[in-house]
Parts: sequence; structure tokens; C-alpha cells
Amino acid sequence: MNYKKIDKKDIEVINEIIIDKDRIFIGENINEDYSHDELGNVKELPDIVIQPLNTYEISKIMKYANENFIPVTPRGSGTGLVGAAVPIKGGILLDLSKMNKILELDEENLTLTVEPGVLLMEITKYVEERELFYPPDPGEKTATIGGNINTNAGGMRAVKYGVTRDYVRGLEVVLANGEVLQLGGKVVKNSSGYSLKDMIIGSEGTLAIITKATLKLLPLPKKAISLLVPFEELEDAIDTVPFIIKSKSIPTAIEFMQKQAILDSEEFLGKKFPDNSSEAYLLLTFDGNSKEEVEKAYEKVAEICLKYGALDVYISDTEERQESIWTARGSFLEAIKASTTEMDEVDVVVPRNKVAEFVKFTHTMEKKHDIRIKSFGHAGDGNLHIYILKDNLEEDQWNSKLHKVMEDMYSKAKELKGQVSGEHGIGYAKKGYLKQSLSNDAMALMEGIKKVFDTNNILNPGKVCQ
Amino acid sequence: MNYKKIDKKDIEVINEIIIDKDRIFIGENINEDYSHDELGNVKELPDIVIQPLNTYEISKIMKYANENFIPVTPRGSGTGLVGAAVPIKGGILLDLSKMNKILELDEENLTLTVEPGVLLMEITKYVEERELFYPPDPGEKTATIGGNINTNAGGMRAVKYGVTRDYVRGLEVVLANGEVLQLGGKVVKNSSGYSLKDMIIGSEGTLAIITKATLKLLPLPKKAISLLVPFEELEDAIDTVPFIIKSKSIPTAIEFMQKQAILDSEEFLGKKFPDNSSEAYLLLTFDGNSKEEVEKAYEKVAEICLKYGALDVYISDTEERQESIWTARGSFLEAIKASTTEMDEVDVVVPRNKVAEFVKFTHTMEKKHDIRIKSFGHAGDGNLHIYILKDNLEEDQWNSKLHKVMEDMYSKAKELKGQVSGEHGIGYAKKGYLKQSLSNDAMALMEGIKKVFDTNNILNPGKVCQ
Repeated sequence: MNYKKIDKKDIEVINEIIIDKDRIFIGENINEDYSHDELGNVKELPDIVIQPLNTYEISKIMKYANENFIPVTPRGSGTGLVGAAVPIKGGILLDLSKMNKILELDEENLTLTVEPGVLLMEITKYVEERELFYPPDPGEKTATIGGNINTNAGGMRAVKYGVTRDYVRGLEVVLANGEVLQLGGKVVKNSSGYSLKDMIIGSEGTLAIITKATLKLLPLPKKAISLLVPFEELEDAIDTVPFIIKSKSIPTAIEFMQKQAILDSEEFLGKKFPDNSSEAYLLLTFDGNSKEEVEKAYEKVAEICLKYGALDVYISDTEERQESIWTARGSFLEAIKASTTEMDEVDVVVPRNKVAEFVKFTHTMEKKHDIRIKSFGHAGDGNLHIYILKDNLEEDQWNSKLHKVMEDMYSKAKELKGQVSGEHGIGYAKKGYLKQSLSNDAMALMEGIKKVFDTNNILNPGKVCQ
Repeated sequence: MNYKKIDKKDIEVINEIIIDKDRIFIGENINEDYSHDELGNVKELPDIVIQPLNTYEISKIMKYANENFIPVTPRGSGTGLVGAAVPIKGGILLDLSKMNKILELDEENLTLTVEPGVLLMEITKYVEERELFYPPDPGEKTATIGGNINTNAGGMRAVKYGVTRDYVRGLEVVLANGEVLQLGGKVVKNSSGYSLKDMIIGSEGTLAIITKATLKLLPLPKKAISLLVPFEELEDAIDTVPFIIKSKSIPTAIEFMQKQAILDSEEFLGKKFPDNSSEAYLLLTFDGNSKEEVEKAYEKVAEICLKYGALDVYISDTEERQESIWTARGSFLEAIKASTTEMDEVDVVVPRNKVAEFVKFTHTMEKKHDIRIKSFGHAGDGNLHIYILKDNLEEDQWNSKLHKVMEDMYSKAKELKGQVSGEHGIGYAKKGYLKQSLSNDAMALMEGIKKVFDTNNILNPGKVCQ
């Protein structure tokens, strides 16, 4: 595909659509941040950055770009880890961060309608102040809701509450040709043709641009407590999880962490974690509407943990203590990043009873490839976050080792009937691994769907299945 | 599209694939039931009925049918109401009811893997005996799980637990060309390319044939109670629902019913309902893990009901009493059907706070078109089941009135930002209304997706978006 390079005439047209000049950036005025996401391994600057304010502007821009074969890449906060928001073909970068209004809280339908640039942390704050609850809880709170929907982000609470997809009732989107579609709405059920809404959720900005989302809310659970459970070894900790699930007690979240991650986080935050004397920990939360309900659930689980080798069970029922634990958990990625020169990540998801086996496997990888590997993640839902660290390796050596480690990890995930990505998506960086993990027929269907939505292939090209 | 008529040679090939001759029916040996579904308005016999036993047989049949342009329509129990399982183009009818094995309960991952022909009631029984819970609860318990997935059936408990889509973790499907795909799996999260699984859910057998499904289970709530709440008028009953939702108490189900539906059901079942003295009722259920938890929730809601005009609140906490209420509720469709000569239905879904307005509207329709209309439905999730009854109308008059009523109803639903179908699907009967309710772009996307999955248009042709 030969895309049109943006020229003077294009800029004139864009200037007519976007009236405020301070929402257009060209050439040297483009901030370097726009060339990469949080991981930074995929790099490319766009020709022009536009910060639209509304659906109308996006529709006009898309229509023009589509007619003129100009690539368009949408971007939220840029907190992604697979290069999905990097404009690898140049062209227009649509920075949606200025479309950041909470549009409507509908308490009779328990829905919240927002623009795509609203941050996850803003949604949380807004609804919780009103005793309402938006359950999806990815670690990165400064991500936009548009980004969360585009990756179908999962987060910590997927164990009990499911993932982002389960909370998107309706979407307004702009198609590649500029047409605006309303999908779903405030309705609880829908069996009216193929679910285009579900096709767009998790499509990483390659099928349409989300301009509005109607989210399902729940009443805010009145009580929440956390358990921090130390174990002598990580395997013991993770092996306990299937027994917890089997016990028919569903915690809100079950995270696992190792001592080193805690130490890194203590150094990074300059704050002490409640305990760092053990090798491994499970971190669990429980929520409910009364003290008794929550107690009944966690007491049973605490017993199971002790039965299967936990050294102790620390209960955090004050807000401060919970805050300190979860702040540490929230800093793991940053702390690991700060501990090395460069890194890449694996975000596989495996069945819950295979997590222990996969984590053990990553430890053998450290030895086999002589490279530092850190992991933490969602023991309760099988989604692992594994970081391969460059440290002082030479560029060549790093690339070669990284490639081998990745190949090994993804083929192990496949063997365990896992999937390439649990919540970070495929973007640019994981395309090869997606292709390896899926059948040719599945890939062909995805490519076909991409063509149906975006005939001229201008919308975030070169991503996911391309 | 000119389809190939099935001839002797085709039958020979089919006989080679399907070894047991008693699983093939041709010509006069085809039961008339195969020509229609539960509503019966759409009628056509297939040329051949095949009862496959496994994925391999289906794959072989599809490959042959695809290469030879023979239409194939999959069918479960035939309990649909929109003609989705009627072979309107003739050809092969795949009766999946013999693929009815529960394949695996995985307690460590809380999943149940089943063949498509397992009945909903069988799943319920199997999991509840093991203190597990499959929440989707459509009224028709003899529907197959394959049918439920293909319509994304919602049921009574959508208020609290969501719809079928939310409980499908993985699918095995056979594509139109005979290839077998594994989508998703036992994993809780997945962001690995476009969600083909979610495209197939709700696609009414037009994109692929589901041959296996892995369902998400929950622990069975230990307590459940029902409230039967009489009101002087239906409007009062339904108007109360937004206040219940707003109160941050989420019942498992909120159904509404009118006196006449109860009387019809009493006559149909030959059993008395606990109360039939009032004009209208709300029927609510609450579930949870302790008596206290459930009591706390329903006491608050009972107060709200009384505040907004309820005449009384009857609590059913014994199994027998609940059984008697819910058996009556379950018989409404049959009872209405038995009360007339022929009927057609509307299954719109509107935002929850528009249910009252829509029901009031249906009453004006009765007068405007001088025709009998019955309704009941899911006040808690906005999904209405409305039945237009032929009674003693002449065929011509019936068709003309029915058409006008339908037009009015669907345009009202659109005005209220509702959707054509909440859970019954589009099939053949509602295609025109889907087209009216969606934009040309949305329809074009659906048509495009259909072509990607089924290039030769042999899979359940003439349905949904065609």
C-alpha cells in the first residue's frame, strides 16, 4: 500500500476542520513522546498530530484521510506496551486525550457515558464518590477508557467481575470512511444482528475510532479487605490458587508477587511494604456489602492458604494499610523498569490451574538463556506479566536472546492452551506471536474483517493481524 | 445465488460421511417439525436432515456442501421464535440434538465444556447438583445451549448476572468451508486479536456451526427468595423499577406480569397461582450466600415497592412456593399461545427506565389497531415479550394488522433508543425491522462480515442481515 505523504494542501484542509491551531502539531513541534508508547521499543513519529475535540472533527478528518490514503493512528494516554498507538506508517496521529468529558451518569439505568480520553482513575473517582462501581481495574490508572476498551483490558478484579468487555453497553464510533455508528446503547440485552460493538472492543484502534462509550456500573460494595499471605516459595503460593477457586469462594482479586518485586518497589517508592521477609506472597481482596459477608469469605480462604503452606495471613482492613499494599502492587512495572536499561514483556494468559507451571517455566528460562526475568501478575485469572530485562547486554546479544526467550514462552503458553495476550493486546510488537498461535483460518478471518471495516487500510495500519 | 438441488450423488456422499443410516432423513421421512420453529410462521422443509454425532462429521459435511453450493441450516431444539433454524433455502438441515454430551467439568478453572445439543435444563441440573451455577436463565429450558449461544439469550437473571455472552469462555466451531477453529478456551482474559468468539455468539448459525462450548461457572448462591408484589395497575408496578435500580440493590430478576397472564397460566397449567386478585405484579428474586445478606437486600426493595404503590409484598422463601410462582411464569408463552389461533411476537429491549413507557404504548396499540396484545417480560433489564394475537381474524386482515402493529412497535423502540431484539434474535422474521433500525453502514458491515466467514453463502442463508 502506497500511502500519500502529508503535504501543504492536506495541512490546509486539516486546518479548516480543526479550527484551533494549538490542537495541530507538525514537524519539529511534535513532541517526541508521540513516537512511542510506555515500552518504547517501537518508534516512529507521525507527520502530524491532531487533538480533536469531538466526533464531528474526527469524522471529517477520517473522511479526508480515507479519500486520500493517509494513515491515521488513534492514541489515548500512550500507556500501551505493544506499540499499538505508534504511527508506524506516519501520517496522522489522533491524540484523543482532549476528549475527556464525563457526559452522563444515568442512575436509573446504572450507566456512565464518557468520552474516550477520560482516564480510568477519573472514572473510578467519579463513580465511587456516588457509591457506584466500575469494576475493571487494570494496573495503569492513567490509561484512558478508550485505550482500555481497545485492548479489552482486564485488570485485577477479573476473577470476580470480568473484563472491560463485560462493562461496555454501548459505543459511538467513527469508521475509517468517516461515518458515525451508534452500537448498543443503554440496553442490558441485545440480539440484534452481529455484535459490531464486540468486534471493536479489543481491536486496538484498527477497525474504528471510539468517540463515546456507555459503561455499565454496579452498586459500590460497602466493604473490602485485603489479605497478604506469605509463602516460603512462589510455587507454593500459586499452587494454592486452584484450591481457592475450587472452594467456591470467589475473591475479587488474587495477585502473586515475589520478594524481589517488593524490594524493587520499596526502593522505587521509598516506602516500606508491610512485610518483605518471605520469598513469595499472594495478595487477595474480598468485597461485599457487610462485614460478616466479607469475613465469611476470607476466613475460609485464609484456612485454605494455611493448609497449603502459607506462613501467615495478614489482614488489611484499614484503608491506609490497603492503600500501602496496593500502591506497591501498582508500582511493580515502574520499579522493574527502573531496575534495568531496557525490557520487553510477555502478557500471556493461561488457564488458572496452569499459572504455577508457567511461572516455574519462566524460572528455567532465566537459567537457560542466562537473562534476568521478572514476573508478577494475576494468579486468580491466569494472566501473567513477565518482563525480560536487558541490563548490560549488548544490543545484538539482547535482540537474539530476547527473541529466543519470547519464542520459548509463547510456545509454552500455546502448549498450556493459553493465549498470546491477556490484556495488553497485540499491537505491533506481538504480531508474529499471534500468527504463530492462531490457525491460518483464524488469521484469514481477522484480515477479512479488517478489510470490511477499513477498505483502504488507513486505520492504524500494520497492527494486530496485518 | 443458485444453490445446487440435492441429488442422488450428494446423498451417496453424505451416506459415506454419516455411517449410521438412522441419522439421515430424506423426503417423506422428514418429520414436519423440521420445517418450522416454535412460532411456526416461517415454514420450509429441508431436502435432507442429518443428525451428526461429532465435529468430524460436521466438518466433512460442510466441506462438501461448500464445494457444491448446498445450503446448510443448523438446528438445536427448534424453540426459536424468529425462524432462524428454518431451512428457507432447502438443502441440508443439521439437527445437532444428538451432540448432547457434557464433556468436562473443570472445578479448578470453574468451567463446563459441553456439546451444542445439551439442553439448558440439563446444564442447570448438572451444575446445581455440584453446588455450581450457570446464571443465564432464559424462559425456555428445553432450548439447547448451542441455540442459547447463537441468540446470545438473556433470560431472567440478566439484571444481576448478565447474558449468555458473558458466560462463554471458549468455542469450537466449524466454518462454512469445513475448517475447525478453537476460539478462546478456559482463559479468563483474552486480548489476542479480534474476538471471533464474540462475533459468532449471537450470529444465529450464519457464521459458523458451534460444536463445543466452554462455559464459565460461578459458585451456587446458597440462598434465594422471591417476592411477589401486587399493584393496582401495571404502570405503577413498572414505574417502581427505576427506583429499585437506583437504590443500589440489585435483585437477580425483576419480572412484570398482568392478571390476565396469570389467569391464562392457571387455566393452562390447571394450577392456582399464589395470588391473582390484583391487576399487575412484579416478581423479584434475590440471591446470596446467607439469609441475612438476602434479607437485607429484599427488605430495602420491599420498602421501595410499598412506598411507590405496592398493595402488599408476598415473600416466598420455601422451594415449593417459589417453584409454583416460577412454573407459572415459565408457562406464560405457552398459555398465551393456547389462548389464540396464531400469534407473532416482539422482543424489543429498551433502556430500563423506558419499559413503562413502552408497555403503555402497547396498550394504545391494542385500541388503535383493534387487536389483542399480551405482554410480559423482564422489567429489570428492559426486555419485553409482546404477543400480538390473531384470534378470529381473517388471514388478510391479520397480516395487514400485524404488519402495522409491528411497524409501530419497532419505530417506538427506536425512538426510545431500544433495539429490535433483546434475546430472540433476528432470524428470518425480523430482518426487515433490523434493517430499519440500523444505519446502512452497520448493515453493510454485517453483510461484509457474513461474506468473510461464508464466501459461498451456504451457511443458514437468508437470515439476519441478508
